[in-house]
Amino acid sequence: MGAVRFELLTGSPEGPRRGRLLTRRGVVETPLFMPVGTQGTVKTLTPEEVLGLGAEMILVNAYHLYLRPGCEILRAAGGIQSFMGWPGPVLSDSGGYQVFSLAARCSVDEAGVTFRSHIDGSEHFFSPERVMRVQEDIGADIIMPLDVCTPYPCDREAAARAVALTEDWASRSLATRPAPERQALFAIVQGSTYPDLRRRAARALVQRDFPGYALGGLSVGEPRPLLYSLLEVTVPELPADRPRYLMGVGAPDDLVEAVSRGVDMFDSVFPTRLGRHGTVLTRDGPLSLRGARFRQDMRPIAADCPCYACRTFTRAYIRHLLIAGEVLGIRLTTLHNLTFTLTLVREMGQAIAEGRFAGWREEMLARYREGRVEN
Amino acid sequence: MGAVRFELLTGSPEGPRRGRLLTRRGVVETPLFMPVGTQGTVKTLTPEEVLGLGAEMILVNAYHLYLRPGCEILRAAGGIQSFMGWPGPVLSDSGGYQVFSLAARCSVDEAGVTFRSHIDGSEHFFSPERVMRVQEDIGADIIMPLDVCTPYPCDREAAARAVALTEDWASRSLATRPAPERQALFAIVQGSTYPDLRRRAARALVQRDFPGYALGGLSVGEPRPLLYSLLEVTVPELPADRPRYLMGVGAPDDLVEAVSRGVDMFDSVFPTRLGRHGTVLTRDGPLSLRGARFRQDMRPIAADCPCYACRTFTRAYIRHLLIAGEVLGIRLTTLHNLTFTLTLVREMGQAIAEGRFAGWREEMLARYREGRVEN
Repeated sequence: MGAVRFELLTGSPEGPRRGRLLTRRGVVETPLFMPVGTQGTVKTLTPEEVLGLGAEMILVNAYHLYLRPGCEILRAAGGIQSFMGWPGPVLSDSGGYQVFSLAARCSVDEAGVTFRSHIDGSEHFFSPERVMRVQEDIGADIIMPLDVCTPYPCDREAAARAVALTEDWASRSLATRPAPERQALFAIVQGSTYPDLRRRAARALVQRDFPGYALGGLSVGEPRPLLYSLLEVTVPELPADRPRYLMGVGAPDDLVEAVSRGVDMFDSVFPTRLGRHGTVLTRDGPLSLRGARFRQDMRPIAADCPCYACRTFTRAYIRHLLIAGEVLGIRLTTLHNLTFTLTLVREMGQAIAEGRFAGWREEMLARYREGRVEN
Repeated sequence: MGAVRFELLTGSPEGPRRGRLLTRRGVVETPLFMPVGTQGTVKTLTPEEVLGLGAEMILVNAYHLYLRPGCEILRAAGGIQSFMGWPGPVLSDSGGYQVFSLAARCSVDEAGVTFRSHIDGSEHFFSPERVMRVQEDIGADIIMPLDVCTPYPCDREAAARAVALTEDWASRSLATRPAPERQALFAIVQGSTYPDLRRRAARALVQRDFPGYALGGLSVGEPRPLLYSLLEVTVPELPADRPRYLMGVGAPDDLVEAVSRGVDMFDSVFPTRLGRHGTVLTRDGPLSLRGARFRQDMRPIAADCPCYACRTFTRAYIRHLLIAGEVLGIRLTTLHNLTFTLTLVREMGQAIAEGRFAGWREEMLARYREGRVEN
């Protein structure tokens, strides 16, 4: 048996669905949102706090951890879970996205990617095989193959080449992956904004029978309707009995739209990064707490929110902390935004289980999008 | 009855002693270390965490809170305790030290101090009376009069003038202070490094019968032996039945030396600021965790420390967080350093109660100072 098994509980193959991932570190419900712990920490929070918010699984990043602290230290610590004190399952991203978006320079050929570290400019080489070894040292429950992640917009030729390389690298990753009973290797579907490329990429990968399928190269600047229609094109190509993971998507309305279209798993820095910029999520849309109108606002961020920030502090106080550059300010906005996002995703699961997702969705989106116009 | 009453429990008038402060918000043991919440937050921590470390009373700063968020917001919130969610007693500093050390420019005359904000350069005027009003809005249990805080070194003439103005301002503060049954006004003894000035300043203030006496203008760069000898000169001038508060002192060995000389109360940014710079306190002296020798050090900061950081994480992980600029790193070093400092002060109280302070002191200082040479 593989390291991760998926059970579909409720739902149609192409519509909203509910399931669970059985991992060696516990059972995780889907739809699932994974907070991002890029450098081995969900920014500003302790693992205890992340657990307390109801997070079940987190994402870490092979590109970042490879550069710092480095594989030697991760091996010495016995893997990322023990290094960072996270008791639950972990997914590690391959670093494909970071190499293409963050590294100082990078050049791709069939062998892999040569890039310079964004930290110190040092030169490094990632092959699909090397990235499997790095992720073996990290020791996550789900690992991702190196892929070629295209920007938006991207011409058809470059997108086709990215698909071909990503497919070839997925095969090479399969051939050299760590023990599948300890780490499950998912595949990544690329294809930019070209429906036929996405479809072909999905079909080719499905033939190789991965335990899960990710949709990559999305939420990179393309218009939202295009993202949604690409999901509608790609998801039906994926087997119903495998989890579908939309990488890098975390805005509340996008989560709802993607679950509507049959996606099971998400990760995104959206709630945490937004929080660090001083914006908090509410049912009525985001609020930028730095605004002067909150100076004397003695209400909590959201009256119905159970998070520590909302139970304890006023908007006026959190605004003061943000304006004064105090760390507690971004801790509180991070706590709140993750609570909001995890609650939203849990609610979707309940609504699906109880057969009332369509109504829930309509109400949520209307209120959220209406509020957003105001703020 | 005043807002704060002091009871001396054990100890000689000029040697180490143990007592308690009875405030409207609870009873607090002395020797007492107050973590500093300059801007209405103990940097990086929640009030829940600060309480959990065993802190009983904290300090906030009138200069900072007056500038940001401003008195209007503090009044609207019902005072600093309710604004920041701190349930225990609070001491507010007058801002004298900050005006002289932090403000962009300042000029003193008998009326008060004109200064420019370090935040936006705006001009402000603090008179002793104005500072009483500001601290009434803050609503702390113990408040401090505006004083003239001299730097080190300071010529005799300037020191004498600072003493005279500070004495005059203390009288004016007494005349216009808020209701004494709600807020206790302490006095501040200045006099720079001149024993006779310190003695005269203390005597003059003692005649006015304040509920507590602070030693100001120390730990501003003078050699440690000079600080200790100035305590030996000044403390005997202060009444045994009033608390003695040494402002701005928080290094472990200084705390021990000052308690030896009859000081009861302390505040300092030392443990928190040191932590943010990546240095942690141990019985064997401070350790700079950013050092390369901690890269693969899988031990806790201190094996015998009960704090969350030591119970949960390795030096290697905390070093990684510090090097990577992650907020969790400075949260953990702050937690640890405050735990260390509060534990140290609590141990002093126990040693005094059990009549074994002299031996405890010798052992502590030998180990701490010996270790410091090594690190």
